[in-house]
Amino acid sequence: MSFLVDGLQYSNWSEAIFRQLRAGGVDAVHVTITYHETFRETVANIERWNRWFELFPELVFQGFTAEDIALARRTGRTAIFFGAQNPSCIEDDIGLVEVLHRLGLRFLQLTYNNQSLLAAGCYEAEDGGLTRMGREVVAEMNRVGMVVDMSHSGERSTLEAIAHSTRPVAVTHANPSDWHPALRNKSDRVIRALAESGGMLGFSLYPHHLKGGSACTLQDYAAMIARTAERYGIAMLGIGSDLCQDQPDSVVAWMRAGRWTKRVDYGEGSAEAPGFPAMPRWFRDARDFGALRDGLAAVGFAGGEIDAILGGNWERFFHTSFGVAVPEQKRAAQ
Amino acid sequence: MSFLVDGLQYSNWSEAIFRQLRAGGVDAVHVTITYHETFRETVANIERWNRWFELFPELVFQGFTAEDIALARRTGRTAIFFGAQNPSCIEDDIGLVEVLHRLGLRFLQLTYNNQSLLAAGCYEAEDGGLTRMGREVVAEMNRVGMVVDMSHSGERSTLEAIAHSTRPVAVTHANPSDWHPALRNKSDRVIRALAESGGMLGFSLYPHHLKGGSACTLQDYAAMIARTAERYGIAMLGIGSDLCQDQPDSVVAWMRAGRWTKRVDYGEGSAEAPGFPAMPRWFRDARDFGALRDGLAAVGFAGGEIDAILGGNWERFFHTSFGVAVPEQKRAAQ
Repeated sequence: MSFLVDGLQYSNWSEAIFRQLRAGGVDAVHVTITYHETFRETVANIERWNRWFELFPELVFQGFTAEDIALARRTGRTAIFFGAQNPSCIEDDIGLVEVLHRLGLRFLQLTYNNQSLLAAGCYEAEDGGLTRMGREVVAEMNRVGMVVDMSHSGERSTLEAIAHSTRPVAVTHANPSDWHPALRNKSDRVIRALAESGGMLGFSLYPHHLKGGSACTLQDYAAMIARTAERYGIAMLGIGSDLCQDQPDSVVAWMRAGRWTKRVDYGEGSAEAPGFPAMPRWFRDARDFGALRDGLAAVGFAGGEIDAILGGNWERFFHTSFGVAVPEQKRAAQ
Repeated sequence: MSFLVDGLQYSNWSEAIFRQLRAGGVDAVHVTITYHETFRETVANIERWNRWFELFPELVFQGFTAEDIALARRTGRTAIFFGAQNPSCIEDDIGLVEVLHRLGLRFLQLTYNNQSLLAAGCYEAEDGGLTRMGREVVAEMNRVGMVVDMSHSGERSTLEAIAHSTRPVAVTHANPSDWHPALRNKSDRVIRALAESGGMLGFSLYPHHLKGGSACTLQDYAAMIARTAERYGIAMLGIGSDLCQDQPDSVVAWMRAGRWTKRVDYGEGSAEAPGFPAMPRWFRDARDFGALRDGLAAVGFAGGEIDAILGGNWERFFHTSFGVAVPEQKRAAQ
């Protein structure tokens, strides 16, 4: 059985998008539920999700364990796994890690572009690595089974998180920086450290992470995946589409500026292009995973390899990542 | 297999008290984790419990389903089920019912002595019954599997909650008022409505609920239980000891006055006796359940009847109360 799993989406959710997930045969998605929100605000976002689960039980349900991916397939629905792109939701309180894990949070980025209480973001001039609290929180995340996600973190912080974490770390949505040198993409050193520790890299389809931006071709994208597979192996590779469907530009402004500045921060954009960029025409929503499959086949991937990249690897990673820590799990995964 | 289940405790928890639970063979306890606390403050209390579960895993663990009672017995531990004595923890936000249920909250009192957003407390001069929000919240509690607990509610509110709830309601800690006419004890009408709807009454051992207070004898207490069993049947009866061990008097002041008054409210106490009353000498902590068993035998209960009152009835009630609603569950329980 091959599963289709998307390692990151942040859409403006609606019945229409849920139906696209079903039309695309997506068994599971890691969705971002919070950026700069406090704990209480994050809980309000969870309440909104609970309402969607209650309203559309035939389309989506909340995933808590990797087994929920198979349950989704059996029942013709999509399992939704929660994640946070910034640690604002745990405030300054390590006890909230376990509380949010109980509420289903399965991924937590230690930073979103900026310095956080835990580590440095990829847009900071200085990266001092994991903070004192950062080391404690990574250990607590390891204990309860919450994935350390370093997609928006700085290089040193990322390498230190990989080294300090006793369980494999993920970069849920980014591409190799030697293909497209965006601050958000990842160096050979980071990707190699991820691969050597049993971690995961989810290839992004967000135009700012693509060579050529919105004009990037499917062939170029698939060839980039093929090169990455040759270099680091296939087992660590997945997709993290970073789909942000139907979001108004005010949302990308919130993602970038939160409450930390009164000025406009353009993040990966610019004054000329401040809003959400247009997706590549060959990947506009979840119904386009079939095109992605064709693109991977066209650059020479075998069927089993495509299955692994489009979901099998994430499914295996979920299995070893979401439960209570087992001693020496990281070693066994290598 | 007969289980020992206590339907309410609010002690100043410590390893010493957890060891008393084990020495007393208590398989499960419904513990109060919050009174007037906001949602965020309640979560901080849950964090404190999570710490205890992490520190003393060989003594206690959090119970989520009725099956955890048997797990507790098999593993020689006590399952701790969370409850709230006032709805402050859901603030004005019905979505917090499902969130708190996910965090393990299995009982919620609609009121604590005073008027709440949901209903009237037993100390209000006027009881207007369930409020608009109260009716909505009871329906939501019914949906997710959270027990409506009317221990501290007024008569009309209690009767309306029993009538409006589609699942059986509990009075986790109170005694019949015709035995001891305290405002917190329950009328024949309330107890009969509970019995007819498959609800539960947990007999309290808190001195203010006892005839003679701290001087109440075991024989008197057991005879009161026997009379109640004769009148309403045994199936609805359990114990809700209301043990508040090792609490300073400042805690009873918080329970009574919260943040709703700047004056002292003596609640069930008085200016002459403002603090926690002394427990009856035959029931000081969880190690005294054996004495209770002997007392029930002495007034003529058979072994199987004592098993039902000391835990079997709560265990059955937990089974039908904590899961997602099944249509017509209330009828089936009758």
